[in-house]
Amino acid sequence: MRATVIHGTGDVRVETVPDPRIVEPTDALVRVTAACICGSDLWPYRSMPASEAGARIGHEFLGVVEDVGADVAGFAAGDLVVAPFVWSDGTCDFCHEGLQTSCRHGGLWGRDGIDGGQGEAVRVPQAAGTLVKLPVGEDSALLPSLLTLSDVLPTGYHCARTAGVGPRTTVTVIGDGAVGLSAVLSAKRLGAERIILMGHHKDRTDLGIEFGATDIVSERGEGGVERVRELTGGDGTHTVLECVGLVEAIETAFGVVRDGGTVSRVGAPQYSDVPMPFPVFLRNVTLTGGVAPARAYIDRLLPDVLEGRVQPGKVFDLTVGLEDVADGYRAMADRTALKVLVKP
Amino acid sequence: MRATVIHGTGDVRVETVPDPRIVEPTDALVRVTAACICGSDLWPYRSMPASEAGARIGHEFLGVVEDVGADVAGFAAGDLVVAPFVWSDGTCDFCHEGLQTSCRHGGLWGRDGIDGGQGEAVRVPQAAGTLVKLPVGEDSALLPSLLTLSDVLPTGYHCARTAGVGPRTTVTVIGDGAVGLSAVLSAKRLGAERIILMGHHKDRTDLGIEFGATDIVSERGEGGVERVRELTGGDGTHTVLECVGLVEAIETAFGVVRDGGTVSRVGAPQYSDVPMPFPVFLRNVTLTGGVAPARAYIDRLLPDVLEGRVQPGKVFDLTVGLEDVADGYRAMADRTALKVLVKP
Repeated sequence: MRATVIHGTGDVRVETVPDPRIVEPTDALVRVTAACICGSDLWPYRSMPASEAGARIGHEFLGVVEDVGADVAGFAAGDLVVAPFVWSDGTCDFCHEGLQTSCRHGGLWGRDGIDGGQGEAVRVPQAAGTLVKLPVGEDSALLPSLLTLSDVLPTGYHCARTAGVGPRTTVTVIGDGAVGLSAVLSAKRLGAERIILMGHHKDRTDLGIEFGATDIVSERGEGGVERVRELTGGDGTHTVLECVGLVEAIETAFGVVRDGGTVSRVGAPQYSDVPMPFPVFLRNVTLTGGVAPARAYIDRLLPDVLEGRVQPGKVFDLTVGLEDVADGYRAMADRTALKVLVKP
Repeated sequence: MRATVIHGTGDVRVETVPDPRIVEPTDALVRVTAACICGSDLWPYRSMPASEAGARIGHEFLGVVEDVGADVAGFAAGDLVVAPFVWSDGTCDFCHEGLQTSCRHGGLWGRDGIDGGQGEAVRVPQAAGTLVKLPVGEDSALLPSLLTLSDVLPTGYHCARTAGVGPRTTVTVIGDGAVGLSAVLSAKRLGAERIILMGHHKDRTDLGIEFGATDIVSERGEGGVERVRELTGGDGTHTVLECVGLVEAIETAFGVVRDGGTVSRVGAPQYSDVPMPFPVFLRNVTLTGGVAPARAYIDRLLPDVLEGRVQPGKVFDLTVGLEDVADGYRAMADRTALKVLVKP
């Protein structure tokens, strides 16, 4: 089959790789009908050392089940399914606690012999725990929104939920990428009345307003912090959803959070040391978040998408065929596209 | 009056300073009957540059009201009272939220012309919001335990509460100082069944066992992390109460916390950058805590002390007169005393 392989910085290719097949009785074979490129795919795209062998890539996809192993109950050939960006058994204690990202028998797509999502098909390990059936046809207009269930929507939701967003909570969202916009959508869904979106791409912040943002702050750094403080009587917001992953973003987060408030971060951090000077301690600021256990949230987010209460698929502003996936990476890296859908 | 003044590293003196008097109508004048030395007093004791003028010090005290300003309702001369280590008005939004450490009209003892606690008397600003009446006599045997309400007991409690300790929570407490032992006591009071105390002073860890610790880990660093993991089936504990404040302690905390768990820190951090490498993000570890709003907890902790359910005063193992306060500092700095009570 054909699949995406990254060979180094800026070097994404589509190559012929071995056809996946059922190996374990807990596997399913899924033909991918829609995949996408994640902001986190851009980190290796911008920094991976050159590699002859390359690495499979992509962790957001939905598709049609073609075959299932003997132990995969509840799924059959022909089912349309979405996969979260981490696979998990659904039976261990962490899965039962809703922390499928720490599953005792789970793992990541595109690693250790597991297919990446940006290809024609995927062998899905622990399929019964991982996959979620979608009650629509393969040609449904909801497909782009359903595809966001694989990563960006639950990631934004995880950010808002772990921050403790609710009806009496003011919120700052840092970052107007697909995750930031999903965080806006999630904060709105959780009842927040005031949602300040920090971002400086007008087309994206316009979508943010459509998703529920009440204020846009386009200044960065200190100027942005001052602006949010002005908007909040000097205090900052109860919660801050940090959806970027750069150290400057977390510094901004601590600058705009209210005393006693919570910063949640879901943007894969590109730093190891979190700058938390003494005043952050004196102000009792909590830092939470982490990699989102997307599987934990799909069941509760799916009805919102199916019934049209949210339309997270609006983040997709470019669709490419699998053979043109490199164009998609380029467009996202150049910020000419917000989020790219890949049709194998 | 006589009061403690710190002039630099290792240089603590008792000097004659101006007698305090009512200045604002919200002030009270309190004659100190018992004060103590805090672990955090040792930071300037170990590092303060030499100063001719010096600085007043001490933030934990109880005493008898001698006079009150016109606006101080509910208190009268003769009342025995305890003061939390931050003074606060009790009326602003932060005070109502239980975050008196961020009070809009509050402040710290020993700063900006406010008396320190290690002296014969203190002018208490915002007295109605700050002070808590104690329904015992000046000679009560409960006084040492009541004195811990000013700082160490609520600080340990804040650590356990913000970490989310409860009946189904496993706990690691890092540090066998007075705050760490108070955290053990608080975790026990909140229902934790498994409390692992990391400390290496046997007399202190023995008191930890009396306070509710179920396991003692005396190894430090990597060895300590491995030991806690062994005790918990490899997983670590749901919550970690970091009561030291050194970067090594917070590293240990991330090493012994279970995936999805919470680290709370209340030891005044002696570092600005929190080492949180990528796995901490992948493991969804929350970092919470901060300076304890002691005032918020005194009302709920006071009955426990009065009715003898907890005996936090056992942390005091040395009593000195005010004129000998320097001996108390030396004993705590040399670790020959766990916690020193000062009798003016």
